Amino acid sequence: MEPYDLSAAEASAAIADGSLTSETLVRSCLSRIAARDPVVKAWSYLDARQAIADARECDKEIATHGGPKTPLHGIPIGVKDIIDVEGMPTTFNSVFYQDHVPSRDAECVRVVRACGAVILGKTDTVEFASGGRKALTTHPMNTGHSPGGSSSGSAAAVGDHHVPVAFGTQTAGSLIRPASYNGIYALKPTHASVAWPGAGQYAPSLDTIGWYGRSVDDVAMMAAAYRLRGVDQAAPAAQTLTVGLCKTPYADRCEPATLEMLESAGKRLAAAGITVTEVEMPDGFVELSEMHRRVMFGEGMSHFLAEYLEQGEALSPDFVSRVVGGDVIPAEALREAYDAAAAGRRSLEAMFDGGPDVIMCPSATGEAPKGLTSTGDYVMNAFLTLLHVPLLAIPAASGPSGLPIGVQIVAPRFDEPRLIAAARRLAPLLAPDRI
Amino acid sequence: MEPYDLSAAEASAAIADGSLTSETLVRSCLSRIAARDPVVKAWSYLDARQAIADARECDKEIATHGGPKTPLHGIPIGVKDIIDVEGMPTTFNSVFYQDHVPSRDAECVRVVRACGAVILGKTDTVEFASGGRKALTTHPMNTGHSPGGSSSGSAAAVGDHHVPVAFGTQTAGSLIRPASYNGIYALKPTHASVAWPGAGQYAPSLDTIGWYGRSVDDVAMMAAAYRLRGVDQAAPAAQTLTVGLCKTPYADRCEPATLEMLESAGKRLAAAGITVTEVEMPDGFVELSEMHRRVMFGEGMSHFLAEYLEQGEALSPDFVSRVVGGDVIPAEALREAYDAAAAGRRSLEAMFDGGPDVIMCPSATGEAPKGLTSTGDYVMNAFLTLLHVPLLAIPAASGPSGLPIGVQIVAPRFDEPRLIAAARRLAPLLAPDRI
Repeated sequence: MEPYDLSAAEASAAIADGSLTSETLVRSCLSRIAARDPVVKAWSYLDARQAIADARECDKEIATHGGPKTPLHGIPIGVKDIIDVEGMPTTFNSVFYQDHVPSRDAECVRVVRACGAVILGKTDTVEFASGGRKALTTHPMNTGHSPGGSSSGSAAAVGDHHVPVAFGTQTAGSLIRPASYNGIYALKPTHASVAWPGAGQYAPSLDTIGWYGRSVDDVAMMAAAYRLRGVDQAAPAAQTLTVGLCKTPYADRCEPATLEMLESAGKRLAAAGITVTEVEMPDGFVELSEMHRRVMFGEGMSHFLAEYLEQGEALSPDFVSRVVGGDVIPAEALREAYDAAAAGRRSLEAMFDGGPDVIMCPSATGEAPKGLTSTGDYVMNAFLTLLHVPLLAIPAASGPSGLPIGVQIVAPRFDEPRLIAAARRLAPLLAPDRI
Repeated sequence: MEPYDLSAAEASAAIADGSLTSETLVRSCLSRIAARDPVVKAWSYLDARQAIADARECDKEIATHGGPKTPLHGIPIGVKDIIDVEGMPTTFNSVFYQDHVPSRDAECVRVVRACGAVILGKTDTVEFASGGRKALTTHPMNTGHSPGGSSSGSAAAVGDHHVPVAFGTQTAGSLIRPASYNGIYALKPTHASVAWPGAGQYAPSLDTIGWYGRSVDDVAMMAAAYRLRGVDQAAPAAQTLTVGLCKTPYADRCEPATLEMLESAGKRLAAAGITVTEVEMPDGFVELSEMHRRVMFGEGMSHFLAEYLEQGEALSPDFVSRVVGGDVIPAEALREAYDAAAAGRRSLEAMFDGGPDVIMCPSATGEAPKGLTSTGDYVMNAFLTLLHVPLLAIPAASGPSGLPIGVQIVAPRFDEPRLIAAARRLAPLLAPDRI
């Protein structure tokens, strides 16, 4: 086992007990990247010299301080290339931003930097995390497949052991879906829990920053760094637990193997003593996908206006259509969408009253899609993003093509402690051998 | 009458007919600033040389193009100092950002830049537009009074004819309240209609960028530049109009003169043939101020985290308390606030069904407060900001101290066209002599 194989939590423990240095870990990650990235293409920018220098600085601080100042001290992190890191280009995978080097870290980067993390580099993304050009990234387990998107590079980098944790973002399904495809963990916190400034915005009522890791502890460590309400990194797994299995209103979009995975997961949990029930979402939820589209495109109109005014028709038709084309959402339709979302939030949370502790759904419709032209269907994620609830992706099975399939668990808004405690109990039962 | 006395719409017309150049206008504004700003202190950064150079460039473009490319071409604009302008410092009025010069314009600045506007400079603000240090700005009509805040400098600069239009922002009452105090117009668009990136965020579910001007046409010109749904700069005033006068659930916080102003305004409108009714907001609305506070502080926790981790207790106690102090909002209280806000949006808009075309309330509790230690009470604005509706401030009267008092009119979300058409009809009746 190489240092690059360690999860963030394992690496953190090793740094704390003195058996690992940040420099050793960073060099190991860089060697893995050197060996693998010519094929995986997860990284859009990497400065090995700077990363090693930063790691050495961390090691000095850790020695002086008598130990790491936080669990993230010395841990390398990948940053999706719509998020600013001082001195590294933020290209948004757009031809118009190839030379754009921000002078300041995004707020979310400042938080991990203050915690002592090492920013390893930038990871490839779908253009503006929303449309246009796809990332060059391939699926680490089968280069003929997409790793998903838009957090393509971050998911592949964590899945392929280039880096233990990485930032992703989700406006529809850009964080949770690639976690499923790559067999890794992801935490999408409650909307507006992590500060957005310094990241490229698309639809502010939806845009959420989250994290990939290779264990529940990894994403819990990030949640603790952001001081999400009530999150205690050392909190134990839930002792008693009721899980509501839910196919979502969009089960017809799932591959058969995905629904079998959910059923089989339920059986394994029940066999281990978890109370498992089947739950259905309210009838109206089948409309939420369309409501999500309206909010995303409606707010996207404001967010692509400056690009459109500057670039005109040189901008990808995907973005032009949000400003002046077929994707412009009329006022009445947009009001209806916001109100339906708000009603949906209350209905979803009512399901937890006297109901399950967490709801468990597929985190994608199936395995990673073939080819790189599609990053997959985000229907299992978009309506939940609209509802602002926190989501935690857990690997659960291997699909017909040998690629991972996962589940996402759902809790009420701002109840990340419940989500993490449940995930700690569920993950070993769902993914005993780290698919 | 000097060029600096022209409203943006008047200046735009003069530039279009060739009777005014951008350079003449900018030089006139700069001379007004030179004469007045030693006392008013509206500006935190000004580069006269650059502004004149930009104006000359505009005049060249206008000549080449055979006329202005948009109504904003050649018009100088002030920018609140939490919004990035390339090459000018964004200090947020914080000691920690005195040397911070962004490398890129905020998205809202890129839009007016693409329209040909001249960025005149940065205007002073309350620290991070939220607490801590007040702006140095004084009230232009009486330096012993506050111009209001947090958009202090922008409101005073427009009120004192330093610049015809300026950017402000509103999270509680930071745009509309200073408009009232300074006897000017302001438009706060529907939430999420104007892209935020490049501005210092405080509470993303509330933060809204808007504009000051000295006429309805001025703020309509800005709304058209941002392509707010259905806004047509040339749209006529409403022919028939029903106005619902409303004291809000917070009338007990108003000075007597403010309530008299509302009553007297209603009489003037009725005398001019407008249908005027009295309307009351639903009972539960009295709770919305507290719900607003929860959302603002709840989201503020995420947005001051990076500052807190970097600066610790050197940060103003106002901000520290949002992260780790008495202003931390528990999960359940925050969920309740979001849900109450969503319900309030539907209730407010139900008032328009078969009811008035617009609702008219006081835009502040009274005249500008004495002294510079308080920027005034935002209770008339915060609950409406929470409800995401568009607001247009109109000067309406002179108070007991001879300082302005204004009204704000309210329309359903995304119905800026209705708001602007009503304001065009109402403004000449309310403020016949431009108080």
